Amino acid sequence: MFESAELGHKIDKATYDQEVPALREALLRAQYELIEKARFPVLILVGGVDGAGKSETVNLLNEWMDPRHIQTHGMGEPTQEELQRPYMWRFWRVLPPKGKIGILFGSWYTQPIVNRVLGSSKAVELDQHMEAVVRFEKMLADEGALILKFWMHLSKPQQLKRLTALEKHQATRWRVTEEDWRRFKMYDKFRKASERALRRTSTAEAPWLVVEGNDPRYRSLTVGKSLLQALRAFLDNKTPPRHPLAPPLAPAIDSLHLLKTLDLSLALPKKTYEKELEKYQGRLNMLTREAGFKNVSVMAVFEGNDAAGKGGAIRRVTGALDARRYQIIPIAAPTEEERAQPYLWRFWRHVPAHGRFVIFDRSWYGRVLVERVEGYCSEYDWMRAYAEIVDFEEQLAHNGAVLAKFWLSISKEEQLKRFQEREQIAFKQFKLTEEDWRNREKWEAYEAAVCDMVERTSTRYAPWSLVEANDKYYARVKILKTLCEQIERAL
Amino acid sequence: MFESAELGHKIDKATYDQEVPALREALLRAQYELIEKARFPVLILVGGVDGAGKSETVNLLNEWMDPRHIQTHGMGEPTQEELQRPYMWRFWRVLPPKGKIGILFGSWYTQPIVNRVLGSSKAVELDQHMEAVVRFEKMLADEGALILKFWMHLSKPQQLKRLTALEKHQATRWRVTEEDWRRFKMYDKFRKASERALRRTSTAEAPWLVVEGNDPRYRSLTVGKSLLQALRAFLDNKTPPRHPLAPPLAPAIDSLHLLKTLDLSLALPKKTYEKELEKYQGRLNMLTREAGFKNVSVMAVFEGNDAAGKGGAIRRVTGALDARRYQIIPIAAPTEEERAQPYLWRFWRHVPAHGRFVIFDRSWYGRVLVERVEGYCSEYDWMRAYAEIVDFEEQLAHNGAVLAKFWLSISKEEQLKRFQEREQIAFKQFKLTEEDWRNREKWEAYEAAVCDMVERTSTRYAPWSLVEANDKYYARVKILKTLCEQIERAL
Repeated sequence: MFESAELGHKIDKATYDQEVPALREALLRAQYELIEKARFPVLILVGGVDGAGKSETVNLLNEWMDPRHIQTHGMGEPTQEELQRPYMWRFWRVLPPKGKIGILFGSWYTQPIVNRVLGSSKAVELDQHMEAVVRFEKMLADEGALILKFWMHLSKPQQLKRLTALEKHQATRWRVTEEDWRRFKMYDKFRKASERALRRTSTAEAPWLVVEGNDPRYRSLTVGKSLLQALRAFLDNKTPPRHPLAPPLAPAIDSLHLLKTLDLSLALPKKTYEKELEKYQGRLNMLTREAGFKNVSVMAVFEGNDAAGKGGAIRRVTGALDARRYQIIPIAAPTEEERAQPYLWRFWRHVPAHGRFVIFDRSWYGRVLVERVEGYCSEYDWMRAYAEIVDFEEQLAHNGAVLAKFWLSISKEEQLKRFQEREQIAFKQFKLTEEDWRNREKWEAYEAAVCDMVERTSTRYAPWSLVEANDKYYARVKILKTLCEQIERAL
Repeated sequence: MFESAELGHKIDKATYDQEVPALREALLRAQYELIEKARFPVLILVGGVDGAGKSETVNLLNEWMDPRHIQTHGMGEPTQEELQRPYMWRFWRVLPPKGKIGILFGSWYTQPIVNRVLGSSKAVELDQHMEAVVRFEKMLADEGALILKFWMHLSKPQQLKRLTALEKHQATRWRVTEEDWRRFKMYDKFRKASERALRRTSTAEAPWLVVEGNDPRYRSLTVGKSLLQALRAFLDNKTPPRHPLAPPLAPAIDSLHLLKTLDLSLALPKKTYEKELEKYQGRLNMLTREAGFKNVSVMAVFEGNDAAGKGGAIRRVTGALDARRYQIIPIAAPTEEERAQPYLWRFWRHVPAHGRFVIFDRSWYGRVLVERVEGYCSEYDWMRAYAEIVDFEEQLAHNGAVLAKFWLSISKEEQLKRFQEREQIAFKQFKLTEEDWRNREKWEAYEAAVCDMVERTSTRYAPWSLVEANDKYYARVKILKTLCEQIERAL
């Protein structure tokens, strides 16, 4: 992987001086086109060997283009707020919106490679991590992002020479730390681990560009030209990207499906309900006060048919909680800032710290429910969403989140009854919209979407609970009980 | 202040049970109207004596209204990210947007009162802090926010009784900590300090509502009714709030003003420029690498006439910096999320942590420049902006920010020359818009606005530097030199 970056590439000063002005102008032009069109974000990762010109490259890009529209982030040690969230949270925080260039100095590659070099992780763990990275970068590419990954390389003798030279001069001595020398001693290990990581993550969507870092002119011109070429290709591409055709999800050939297996006649008498409600609310309250709760977080997702009783169920859950501890996130149309980011960005924003309880009233599942059925996104987009969501939830669970997902199911007849009730009661009319009636006409399409969703996204660490909700009492108690059980298992 | 909250207020169960259903319905109705109209945010502060029902009140509001549209924040210990910013940053972070209700359990009052009780601050410091609070709340009110401040009170014998009772029962014992008893011993001091704070901050815009906390029914009904009444008043108010007329700023009666005192013929020959540029860029670079730099932050603000060379000057500054250390914030039209918040919110978002360098390409001064001249906001709004900005900058400076503010000034003739140049050079055409020509027609109005701005917002800790910018070389060197000097003084 690094062979061609150890050939001793060089550019002479005359060539460099001749090429740079035109390159800079073209880069600046491309950048302004990018800002004006705001069709996609540009994400530039800069990694590699110490002393190979990583920071020089970052500074150069800021100098050659308009730095006002470049966001550079040095991803150093994570902060306390970041440590309480999944590893990727801090990167989601700094993703550039459409029209902007984001440069990450240090990235999601740094920690896995360093861990492998220091021997605190196994090769197979590095591989697993890199698989997750491939999926993440594919998601970004599917969302339209231009991803450029530069790996600045030096051969071992070159690095030694470079460190020694830096140390010799007063003005640059500060740049060589003991840490650098300690790391130099691990050059071979580092090379091996990073080669392994790079091989596995050099994909069609986001290939690595390994750049020999020894000659500043060669290095700068290579990075600049690669960036320009990629920018132009994306800017000039007038046809939307074509995705491989996905085989359509086959509906069950008989008419049996998951939702039909639910016994919607399940009900609780009022007396029993009141007793059970109190019991499980009390239990939930005690659970959130246990010492161990400060090491977990809870994310409860509520989805369901219109008028299935989500709001009422949520109130019974929050009724058991201290208001300082929970947050309810009602999911409506995305804001302008959210639309300029990948689909899942607006949910990453709300990932809770440990000890916190977040309730999503509708959720990231909108993509495979309403957006699928109403055709708000392409088939390719909602098809890829299943895997992206599973990834997202796996990261959350891995970080200590209890993920409880509820689908509140009512029959078509029960829904009609509730719609009619709402029409009657002045106070409830606001809850019924034209859209609710329209959705009702697509009952079967929604059923199919729900079944696919449950099948594809119910996992051990983030299971779906289907809730028979024709009877509100039964539904609320089932939800509270399930929540308690899931939290108990986590504590 | 607390006398009428020690009278032994009580509501009997029959009255309570009769009143609550209608109150809840009316609250819910008001809440939905609030969401639908999204004209203003509602901010509810809950403070007071321990055991007086603070958390019960917060939970009750979440139960009585739709908790999906209420954001409750327990403001406990600040996080590491928060500690690196001014005291108010964490509160700006959680301000509710228009249409939402935000409940703060613990607020900007907590720390100043506690500090006074513990004797770590003087009475005069508490007073000063409360003055700042009054200005902050006035700003929120001017932005349209409904602010409700509930202080839950218990007399000393009542508090003793309450703590003892809580401790007696297994189910509530956890709620009484040693800390509570320690605080009880300081009841008199606490009462005195909070009375002092409350008196000074009970204003027409945001009066305190002291609620006797002993009887839960009285307490709940009082809070619920006060909230309803305030919500209704704000929702039903069809005429925009009338502000007291401000006396217009008088222009100087002769034609002499600050900008005219600048000698725009100041210039540097290219040779000198190159030498000076290198010198000050080097000095700036070294300064950001000094050990002390990790305890300060730099916020550099660039404003100026169109075509005065802000972009070029910014590039000369960033050219001296490590790209990982700085961020440039170009200020354009506010996003949807920003428009739902007070004017300064979108700048608070970008307040840097220590050790960071943030450059604002245009800034919060837009309000007293373009918004004033073009009539984008009312005279009352830009008039109050001067004081709000001074407050904002004082907090930043107090937290260790070096605030350098540059006005780049060119003559009307020089601007015309530059506009014409831009028209000629294909590559620079994008930089010239219709708006630039329109702004030019209001040259005198802008001049007046700039003079008022400098006069009213140039402070010891955040001085304006007027930069003679007809000669770009001279301007850039002056900016770099000023920046270096300001940072040196801070280190």
